[in-house]
Amino acid sequence: MALLHCPTRFSITCSYSREQKLSIKVGRYSRIIAGKVNGSIQTIAVSKNSWMVSVASMAEVSTITRTKTRQNIPTKKQLVDPFRQGIIIEGGVGYRQTVVIRSYEVGPDKTATLESHLNLLQETALNHVWVSGLLGDGFGATHGMVRHNLIWVVTRMQLQVDQYPIWGEVLKIDTWVGASGKNGMRRDWLIRSHVTGQVYARATSTWVMMNQQTRRLSKMPEEVRAEISPWFIKKHAIEEETPGTIKKLDNTANYKNSKLKPKRTDLDMNHHVNNVKYVNWMLETIPEISLEGYQLFSITMEYKRECRPSDTVQSLCQPDEDRVSQDGVQVDKNNEEQLQAELEGDASPSGPSPSFTHLLQMTMNSKTEEIVRGRTTWKRKPRLSH
Amino acid sequence: MALLHCPTRFSITCSYSREQKLSIKVGRYSRIIAGKVNGSIQTIAVSKNSWMVSVASMAEVSTITRTKTRQNIPTKKQLVDPFRQGIIIEGGVGYRQTVVIRSYEVGPDKTATLESHLNLLQETALNHVWVSGLLGDGFGATHGMVRHNLIWVVTRMQLQVDQYPIWGEVLKIDTWVGASGKNGMRRDWLIRSHVTGQVYARATSTWVMMNQQTRRLSKMPEEVRAEISPWFIKKHAIEEETPGTIKKLDNTANYKNSKLKPKRTDLDMNHHVNNVKYVNWMLETIPEISLEGYQLFSITMEYKRECRPSDTVQSLCQPDEDRVSQDGVQVDKNNEEQLQAELEGDASPSGPSPSFTHLLQMTMNSKTEEIVRGRTTWKRKPRLSH
Repeated sequence: MALLHCPTRFSITCSYSREQKLSIKVGRYSRIIAGKVNGSIQTIAVSKNSWMVSVASMAEVSTITRTKTRQNIPTKKQLVDPFRQGIIIEGGVGYRQTVVIRSYEVGPDKTATLESHLNLLQETALNHVWVSGLLGDGFGATHGMVRHNLIWVVTRMQLQVDQYPIWGEVLKIDTWVGASGKNGMRRDWLIRSHVTGQVYARATSTWVMMNQQTRRLSKMPEEVRAEISPWFIKKHAIEEETPGTIKKLDNTANYKNSKLKPKRTDLDMNHHVNNVKYVNWMLETIPEISLEGYQLFSITMEYKRECRPSDTVQSLCQPDEDRVSQDGVQVDKNNEEQLQAELEGDASPSGPSPSFTHLLQMTMNSKTEEIVRGRTTWKRKPRLSH
Repeated sequence: MALLHCPTRFSITCSYSREQKLSIKVGRYSRIIAGKVNGSIQTIAVSKNSWMVSVASMAEVSTITRTKTRQNIPTKKQLVDPFRQGIIIEGGVGYRQTVVIRSYEVGPDKTATLESHLNLLQETALNHVWVSGLLGDGFGATHGMVRHNLIWVVTRMQLQVDQYPIWGEVLKIDTWVGASGKNGMRRDWLIRSHVTGQVYARATSTWVMMNQQTRRLSKMPEEVRAEISPWFIKKHAIEEETPGTIKKLDNTANYKNSKLKPKRTDLDMNHHVNNVKYVNWMLETIPEISLEGYQLFSITMEYKRECRPSDTVQSLCQPDEDRVSQDGVQVDKNNEEQLQAELEGDASPSGPSPSFTHLLQMTMNSKTEEIVRGRTTWKRKPRLSH
C-alpha cells in the first residue's frame, strides 16, 4: 500500500453521504471515515505527515466523538437516570438503583447466584460514579484520577446474603462511599426487596488508588480528594471483621485446584481477570458434597495482587474442622432451636455454619505469590424450593 | 426428631406476629411458617398424617404464595412494564425493552460480548411472555403448556451482529413470534441503538415443544395454539440460511477440545447446561491466533439433543480452507475495496470473512451423540479502540 506524502498544509472539506457517513476526498481517493458525527459538517486541517496518517487520526477523533455520543457519560451530577433506573439519595450523595433479577442471573434453584450479586454490586457502584458527573474512565476513575494516571484497586470485599432474591423479583440497591484511612475509600451496599423493603444482602469494600503505569499504590492526590470527599458519608451497611484476619493457607490445605487458566471471556475492561472469576475459582474448589443443602451466607476477600491473563493460578481450600454456630456454640442437632430453624426452612445466621478458608496463588520466578485470601461461611438452604 | 401423630382431622388458626410472620401453634409447639402471605389470615385443615408433615405442606403453600408475591407474574396482558422498561408494540403483539449495556457485559474492548447478546435475547423473550400474561412456568411455558407438561426446546438459533454496542450504551430490543411449520414457533429479535435507531444486531430462532417427562417432542395442543397464535406475526428480522445445512464434523477436524465438563454455575432454571455455555465451548476451541483482529459477525446453531450436568462434552472445530468474501469472491488483499474496508475500520459483511464449522458431541453407551452443530463467520475488528 503506497503512502502519499502531502508536505504542504491544506484543508479538506468533509461531507456526509445520504447514509450519514462522513467522507473525505483527496484526488481520486475517496474514504468514508465515520458514521454520523454529532450531525455537523466539519472542516479538518491536515499537515506535515502523510494524509493516510492524518486520516487515521481524524477517524480516531471521530470514533472518540462517536463513542462519547453513544455512551453519553454525564459531565454534571444527575439526580435521576431513567435508563439505569437510578436516583440520588442520602441528601444528595448516595445512589439507589431499581433492578429486576434476570432469567440468566439465577441458578437451577431460581435464586440469584453469587456471581450475579457481585456483578450488581459492581454495576451500581459504577453507575453511582456515572450519575455523579465525576466519571472520567471505564472502571470508575474520576477526571482527577485520569489526569494522575490512577485507577481504583479493591483491597477488601465482604458480602453477607440473608435472603437470595428470585427470578423476576424487583430489588432496590443502595450504595454510598466513605473515607477509609487517609488514602482509601470505603464503599457499602444494601440490597432490599422493592415490595417489602426487607434487607436481602449487605456488602462493604475498601479501595485504594494505583498508578496505572508503575502498578504501585498511590496516595490520594488533593485534586482527587476534592472531587470525591464531598460524597463521603459515615454509614456502614455491615460491621466488618477486622481486616487482615484471614489466615494464609499452605500446601497442606485439604482441597486444591491447580493450573487454573483465565479464558478470553474472563477478562474485563481493565484487561484483568475479573473479581467474579476469582470467586468462582474459590468456590469450585469446595467439594460438591460439602455444599449439599447449604447456600453461601457470607464471603470475605482480601486482595493481595493482580492476576493477569497469562498467569496460572492455584486455588486452595480448607474447611473449618468444627461446625460451630457463629457465636461459638457447638451445634446440637437435636435441640429445639435447630429444629425450629429447619422447620422454617430459613436457618438464621445464628444456626450451624460450615465455613472455609481460601487462597488463590500463583507461581512467579519460582516464588509463590498470593492473589486473594478468602473466607466463606454457609447456611442451610431453605428446604422448600421456590 | 420425634414425629407427633395427629390421626384426627382438625383445623388450626394461623396468626401473624408484628413482624408479619405467619405462625401456627399446636400445644406447646409454636412454629413460624412464612413471612407476609398476601396480607390475609388463613385457616388451614390438617388431616391424617403427622402434623409435622402437614406443617411442611402448609409451609410449601406459603412459600409458593410468597414466591408469587415476590415475582408478581402478571396474569393479564400488560401494555407497559416499568421495572423491565418494556412496552407492547407491533399493534399489541410485539415487545420492546430498553436496556443499558452493563459494565460486566462487556469484554476487554468495552463492547458487549457474544454471551451478553445471547443473554439479552433470552431475557427479552421471557419478558415478552411475562408481560403477555401467558407465563405459567420458568422458561416461558404458557399455562396451557404447563397443564400438558410441555416445555419449549430451541432447535435453531441464528444471530448476526453488525455493530457491537459499548459499555453504557442504551439499546432497544424488539422481539416477536410467528408460526414455524405446523407445530413450531419462530422468534425474532432486532437490537437497535436507542439514540440513532441504527440496527446493531438481528436474530431468529425456532422452537418446538417437548414433554418434560418423556423428553419426546410433542405436537402443539390446540389449547396452546389458542393461547399463542394470536401473538403470531409474519415478519423476519433476518433471512436465515436453509436449516440443516451445517455439515457434520468428524474426528478429523483440525481443532478439538475434549472432556469439557459442565460446572455447577453452568446450569439454568431447567437444570440443564445453558445455551450460552455451549457457545463458549464452541468458541474456545478456535485457536486464539485465528481470531486476532476479528470479531464474530454471525453464529448459527442447530440443536440436536440436550446436555445434562453429568455429560462430558467434546468440541470440534474446522476452519473453512479459503477465506472468501460472502459472495464467494476470493479476497485480494491489495485490492481497493479491501483497503477501503481497512481504512474504515469497519469491514462490512461483504469483506473478507473467515468462517468455522463447529460440533459439540458426547459419548453415550460407546456411541457418539451430537449436541449442537454450529457455524461462525468473523469480520475484521474496527481498528480504533473505543
